[in-house]
Amino acid sequence: MAKQAAKKQYALGVDYGTNSVRALIVDVADGREVGTHVFNYKAGKDGILLDPKDPNLARQDPADYINGFFASVKGALRQAAKVRGFKPEQIVGIGVDTTGSTPIPVDRDGVALAMKPEFKKDMAAYAWLWKDHTSHAEAAEITEKASRDPAGYLTKCGGTYSSEWYWSKILHCCRTSPKVFKAAYSWIEQADFIPAFITGNTDPDTMPRGICAAGHKCMYHEDWGGLPSKPFLAGLDPKMADLRDRYAAPAIPADQTAGHLTAAVAKKVGLPAGIPVAVGAIDAHLGAVGAGIKPGALVKIIGTSTCDMMVVPMTGKELDVPGLCGIVPGSIVPGMYGIEAGQPAVGDIFNWFTSHLAPAEFTAKGDVHVNLTKAAQKLSPGQSGLLALDWNNGNRSILVDPLLSGLLVGQTLHTTAPEVYRALVEGTAFGALTIIKRIEECGAEVNEVINCGGIAEKNAFVMQIYADVCNRPMKISRSAQTCALGAAIFGAVVGGAYKTTEAAQKKMTGVKPTVYRPNKAAAKIYADLYPLYRALHDAFGTANAQAKLGHVMKELIAIREKTRK
Amino acid sequence: MAKQAAKKQYALGVDYGTNSVRALIVDVADGREVGTHVFNYKAGKDGILLDPKDPNLARQDPADYINGFFASVKGALRQAAKVRGFKPEQIVGIGVDTTGSTPIPVDRDGVALAMKPEFKKDMAAYAWLWKDHTSHAEAAEITEKASRDPAGYLTKCGGTYSSEWYWSKILHCCRTSPKVFKAAYSWIEQADFIPAFITGNTDPDTMPRGICAAGHKCMYHEDWGGLPSKPFLAGLDPKMADLRDRYAAPAIPADQTAGHLTAAVAKKVGLPAGIPVAVGAIDAHLGAVGAGIKPGALVKIIGTSTCDMMVVPMTGKELDVPGLCGIVPGSIVPGMYGIEAGQPAVGDIFNWFTSHLAPAEFTAKGDVHVNLTKAAQKLSPGQSGLLALDWNNGNRSILVDPLLSGLLVGQTLHTTAPEVYRALVEGTAFGALTIIKRIEECGAEVNEVINCGGIAEKNAFVMQIYADVCNRPMKISRSAQTCALGAAIFGAVVGGAYKTTEAAQKKMTGVKPTVYRPNKAAAKIYADLYPLYRALHDAFGTANAQAKLGHVMKELIAIREKTRK
Repeated sequence: MAKQAAKKQYALGVDYGTNSVRALIVDVADGREVGTHVFNYKAGKDGILLDPKDPNLARQDPADYINGFFASVKGALRQAAKVRGFKPEQIVGIGVDTTGSTPIPVDRDGVALAMKPEFKKDMAAYAWLWKDHTSHAEAAEITEKASRDPAGYLTKCGGTYSSEWYWSKILHCCRTSPKVFKAAYSWIEQADFIPAFITGNTDPDTMPRGICAAGHKCMYHEDWGGLPSKPFLAGLDPKMADLRDRYAAPAIPADQTAGHLTAAVAKKVGLPAGIPVAVGAIDAHLGAVGAGIKPGALVKIIGTSTCDMMVVPMTGKELDVPGLCGIVPGSIVPGMYGIEAGQPAVGDIFNWFTSHLAPAEFTAKGDVHVNLTKAAQKLSPGQSGLLALDWNNGNRSILVDPLLSGLLVGQTLHTTAPEVYRALVEGTAFGALTIIKRIEECGAEVNEVINCGGIAEKNAFVMQIYADVCNRPMKISRSAQTCALGAAIFGAVVGGAYKTTEAAQKKMTGVKPTVYRPNKAAAKIYADLYPLYRALHDAFGTANAQAKLGHVMKELIAIREKTRK
Repeated sequence: MAKQAAKKQYALGVDYGTNSVRALIVDVADGREVGTHVFNYKAGKDGILLDPKDPNLARQDPADYINGFFASVKGALRQAAKVRGFKPEQIVGIGVDTTGSTPIPVDRDGVALAMKPEFKKDMAAYAWLWKDHTSHAEAAEITEKASRDPAGYLTKCGGTYSSEWYWSKILHCCRTSPKVFKAAYSWIEQADFIPAFITGNTDPDTMPRGICAAGHKCMYHEDWGGLPSKPFLAGLDPKMADLRDRYAAPAIPADQTAGHLTAAVAKKVGLPAGIPVAVGAIDAHLGAVGAGIKPGALVKIIGTSTCDMMVVPMTGKELDVPGLCGIVPGSIVPGMYGIEAGQPAVGDIFNWFTSHLAPAEFTAKGDVHVNLTKAAQKLSPGQSGLLALDWNNGNRSILVDPLLSGLLVGQTLHTTAPEVYRALVEGTAFGALTIIKRIEECGAEVNEVINCGGIAEKNAFVMQIYADVCNRPMKISRSAQTCALGAAIFGAVVGGAYKTTEAAQKKMTGVKPTVYRPNKAAAKIYADLYPLYRALHDAFGTANAQAKLGHVMKELIAIREKTRK
């Protein structure tokens, strides 16, 4: 027994989400969790700094990231210490994932400007959270200029550059907060900021930059020699050009070592110094790894928002899929193309409804989601006559347009709150189906859908609707913490426990026995509803589309009447 | 004093609404109210018989009409008795208005089938309330057949025959309830049923039929010799043709006498027998009379639904206005064309929202409408980024289509209940403006808008938005009971107190000193929003329209951002 325990190897994954950071210690042999701890960010509302005058603004305090690392890792180690034979020395490697694109302006030494007293009150100096949409004008400008550039910068990010991404945010800062822009020697993605900090490798000129954020968010691609050219950046603003030089190329995948844990950080959390730390990546991508992504398997991370991930072997021609957020070599599983898509609000839409439009009947007692679900579950597909677009926070895939909004159609004088709630769930499912269809149109077959994230874990009602709307079985990842597990997998790889990501995944990931299978009758009705969703989608989401919508309300009523009979 | 009191003359108006009946006794000299009483119908929910399986069904119990007459008139007389010198003998005439089209199947003697034991349980035997929409398929069929008929039956009702109207309902009964259809010797509009009952003139073959319901709801017009021809009715169903013979032509206006109060009814309520009773008319039309309608003045009755009325002097060519519910000689003010339009749900939409989607914050204490209004009043036009179509109960004018539904666009993750509430109010105001524009397009100038009904009376918030959206002053009728007052005006005319309706109106009606005047800044923003409303209106409301809607969400966001700055 003692000998066996001595051989044990563990990996640490640290997963930075939108509102909190989670540390997770897993057994590299089978992915079994032995210790975890969550630290909720302190700044702002649920960790997000907001501006009541501008619903597009969402920033974070980098101090929360640093304090969150210490607190979450210490907490996870405390819990693991209860496991017989566990010793901190058995942790062979550390992996990190974060939200993204969440660029942080830093000084010449890689210190976040927000942590310097002179910028304490300047929101532009903080981390620009992925869901900050203040830069939509700049995104449109970048899209316009990049589309005219012969380098083809947009071919790998679906043809449209997003307001959520690196260059849009930096350009917006350049235009609106010149003081911060001038003081920022470089801008660092959160996924690179954390490994840099814990390995002490904080010089912006030399710190490793992960291919995942670089490729999906920063228009980095080897086809055009890395980041966009200096003339291109200067065309946005002459002051932007120098940023290209302060960026270590080439960007590298997460199976590479970013550095080793510094003595100072190690001491603070109670780990030995020198543990190898993997290059950071974006949470969704490592979530896909933790969920067991492989060719043919679509991984959906369903929480407040949704990320959809695929990997495609690097054989033959690289895919260009219009409307997806990115296709980047090695961004998910090293050695394969990573494809990313997503919906910018899913659980957030349900939460919006329960916070603002659910009557007392459903909020007075117990959990409002449970109460509404109970009532909504009794409804048949089509019975309400309602149809919703899932764009309350814009559309990421396949329209890549933050300047869109929610839409609900089909209301009568009898429409109830559970009916609207169900329609909102169905709207997000139609959005999910639209992404699957686009991926398949472009030649990547989707043979399997593995779901993870809070909603996939907990919400059978939503998952059954997804199965029915998409008319495919919905599998659920075995781990409830796929992002942190994915990070730990790369910790295991850089720590030498496995030679390849695939080998680590094979041992450390899996799906649950419960699978949501499509109900035939429901799937048939949703197949009638989807063209109506698509008609709204195309009419409202495409600039100059000539649409016929005169049939939409009538068909919704006809389906409703048929269902009620 | 005693002599003066002895000369006093009063008129009684009896106003049958959707949920209750009101009797009103007024001084014919100045319209002053001396006694009133409301009787709430007993049957069903708020007086309406519903079918949980079919939201389109809405029926009423004719027994409520009869019991309601007795109770309301007795109550009004009780109250008037407190006025010094008042005597029931001073009532010179009685007028009646009702909802419509609300046809009632009756036997050979004019007795409502629903009041006979053998039909007690058959919903088809009851009164088919105006807002019953079960007959939409029949309405479409009638529209289709009438549009091909050279008689031009649809030219006076806006080109589309409604599911709310007489022949649609009768044809639906013929198709779905043959037993009731066979037992029905004739079908009588509620507006004719009440005068028939209280004057004892109940023979369907000879009882007077009012031009108001006949012209606006039953395709009655002198141009084609009254009701549609027997071949046309037989073309709908051979069994329908005979109904044309069981209908006394010509239909006549409300300044004519329908008969005199029977001794039995008089005794029951405490009035002398023999008082002249005016021909009945539809509530909205008499409401317009009570509000002081005259050429150039649009009267809006704003309650659960809205009716819009105009009168046009009978000089020159008769107007044909596409999309209005009807243009009928003498239907409002005898001697002028009466024009009717409307919105099938206004207050009903606000009530739907407060019943189903208002959170506890607004429902827990006090009146939910007051609470939401307080919050919604603080918002500027355009600030929410929301836009609503007011079609939760279909669209009467200018689309004449019950198979439409509500629509809300512009939701974010921050959209609040007061924002939605305000957007719904604005949606109904845009609907109101669409009607005004259509009337003016067809050559009838709208110089003045006089509002009445519950919302006009009580809701300054809604009325200010109507003023701002329509960019016109909104006047409010002096009387809060314009329908009952309009009925009383015709009571005064048939009772000999005045020679003409206009002369009676001049003395008995007026507007309040308070006028809602448009705010210039608000009107400017609404002028930017209206084209977006209209784009949705035309796209969803027109069968084969090619619409461009890609700008709608973007312009709503742009207006929102401009307003918030």
